[in-house]
Amino acid sequence: MVFDLRAYMAQQAELINDWLERLLEDFAPRPVKLRDSMAYSLFAGGKRLRPILLLAAAEAVANQEVAKEQLLPAACALECLHTYSLIHDDLPAMDDDDWRRGKATNHKVFGEGMAVLAGDALLTLCFEILSQKLDGFAAEQVLRVIAEVARAAGGQGMVGGQAADILWEKERYQHEDPNRLLLYIHEHKTGALLVASVRAGAILAGAQPAQLAALTDYAYAIGLAFQITDDLLDIYGDSQKLGKQTGQDESRGKLTYPAIHGISESRRRVQELIRQAQVSLTPFGPEAEPLRALASFLAERDI
Amino acid sequence: MVFDLRAYMAQQAELINDWLERLLEDFAPRPVKLRDSMAYSLFAGGKRLRPILLLAAAEAVANQEVAKEQLLPAACALECLHTYSLIHDDLPAMDDDDWRRGKATNHKVFGEGMAVLAGDALLTLCFEILSQKLDGFAAEQVLRVIAEVARAAGGQGMVGGQAADILWEKERYQHEDPNRLLLYIHEHKTGALLVASVRAGAILAGAQPAQLAALTDYAYAIGLAFQITDDLLDIYGDSQKLGKQTGQDESRGKLTYPAIHGISESRRRVQELIRQAQVSLTPFGPEAEPLRALASFLAERDI
Repeated sequence: MVFDLRAYMAQQAELINDWLERLLEDFAPRPVKLRDSMAYSLFAGGKRLRPILLLAAAEAVANQEVAKEQLLPAACALECLHTYSLIHDDLPAMDDDDWRRGKATNHKVFGEGMAVLAGDALLTLCFEILSQKLDGFAAEQVLRVIAEVARAAGGQGMVGGQAADILWEKERYQHEDPNRLLLYIHEHKTGALLVASVRAGAILAGAQPAQLAALTDYAYAIGLAFQITDDLLDIYGDSQKLGKQTGQDESRGKLTYPAIHGISESRRRVQELIRQAQVSLTPFGPEAEPLRALASFLAERDI
Repeated sequence: MVFDLRAYMAQQAELINDWLERLLEDFAPRPVKLRDSMAYSLFAGGKRLRPILLLAAAEAVANQEVAKEQLLPAACALECLHTYSLIHDDLPAMDDDDWRRGKATNHKVFGEGMAVLAGDALLTLCFEILSQKLDGFAAEQVLRVIAEVARAAGGQGMVGGQAADILWEKERYQHEDPNRLLLYIHEHKTGALLVASVRAGAILAGAQPAQLAALTDYAYAIGLAFQITDDLLDIYGDSQKLGKQTGQDESRGKLTYPAIHGISESRRRVQELIRQAQVSLTPFGPEAEPLRALASFLAERDI
């Protein structure tokens, strides 16, 4: 029987969307315009990859009896964090993007000031959710998840990656070895949060150290594959499907994997990373099927 | 014997500065320019009011044996949070300030993109520190502090207050009762974080519910007094001492306490709030002397 990833993702996304709405109502950011600005980007058609990874990693481990309802707040917290990063990345002072997923970016609709604040509020909301809504877990476990997420999001993680990215783009900074710099940007800007999503799910499901290490390898590999695929889609993707202009990386002289290594090497590297990810999952049984299917999906996606 | 607040504040500030440097080194944000941008604003001459309040509140309670070294990371986390809010508030899309405490604001030195990221990294660093550096406390206690701080910082707290503030300034939004709106802005934009600082210190020192309630009243009163004094200083203050241009609130038509209630009523209200704050401390003994002196200081400060 082939695992139906499309149905799985749709089902998970529906649950995640329900919970995101519920959490936004619970935490009730004010004034209304701030809430609207947060909701606009939260419900702008994201694939919910990070929360889905969290849930799938917990499913793969499942050493501890954990209901999905207990995991969903943590899953949603990671989507809040991801959404904040998109809002801030799109700002004129950063990547200056007007479109994302076929919709005007947050600052185009709500203005730059409100977009900065909506991002700030979503980043904070992530920690509000993690510290208040993880019912039924030991406080030590929750603290560990908060530490994982904060580390992945901060100056040694996602923000550090984004800073290196804009510095390269604007100043060709330090003339560092572009290959190493690109790896640094990929690992931090996108990779760190994908790894944290998988690890958070595993920790909440009571993963043993060996399981956690295997899942970390998995997440690291799919994180890189995801980013290289993103770079390839900017060259070959259907701008209609992607909901944004393609070819932007090249016109900006952005540091990308295809720009350094060429198209066919990039494709080969994606396949290799996906194979590595699958190998990392060898110790797991059929309960890791969603993670396996997600890895293949990332290599073949066209959105 | 009169309590020497100036010496106390100087001594605490020195400790806090040492710990801030140590923590910045520990968490080592990268690239260097991101770290420099964070350090620039962290060490731009702040009074360290929030961390000092946290330490003083813990001192007032002291039900639990807690060494100052255990409290200092939490104190510094609140300063990181405060510094992030200043960097983002100063951005052109928000208050558009070029000067703060006699120094060029972050985005004037590092550019807008890096200023947004330095703020994001400092906000995240707050939660990195709280989740990783609060040694010797029960995990439940640490989680409670994280929840307090996140709530005070988010869309129902500081960010909500700032959003209401810029909406009023830019759009005279919703034509709400200005008096109520001003109270909302004051309570959220500045008040929430001062309250969280005091409460975090109290929680870490093992405060009983009655003690926590009394200290919350205290913090709420000094928070409002602080903000009204800030508004008065913008009218009467010495721009040299303040390190920024005065008279800006009026020229922007900003909603301030003196603008609505007049100068003498504002001064009366500050004195009344300080009295309230002192009354809240009645249950405490001499170990609350720093908190008492801090309340008076806030009413008389000229910086």
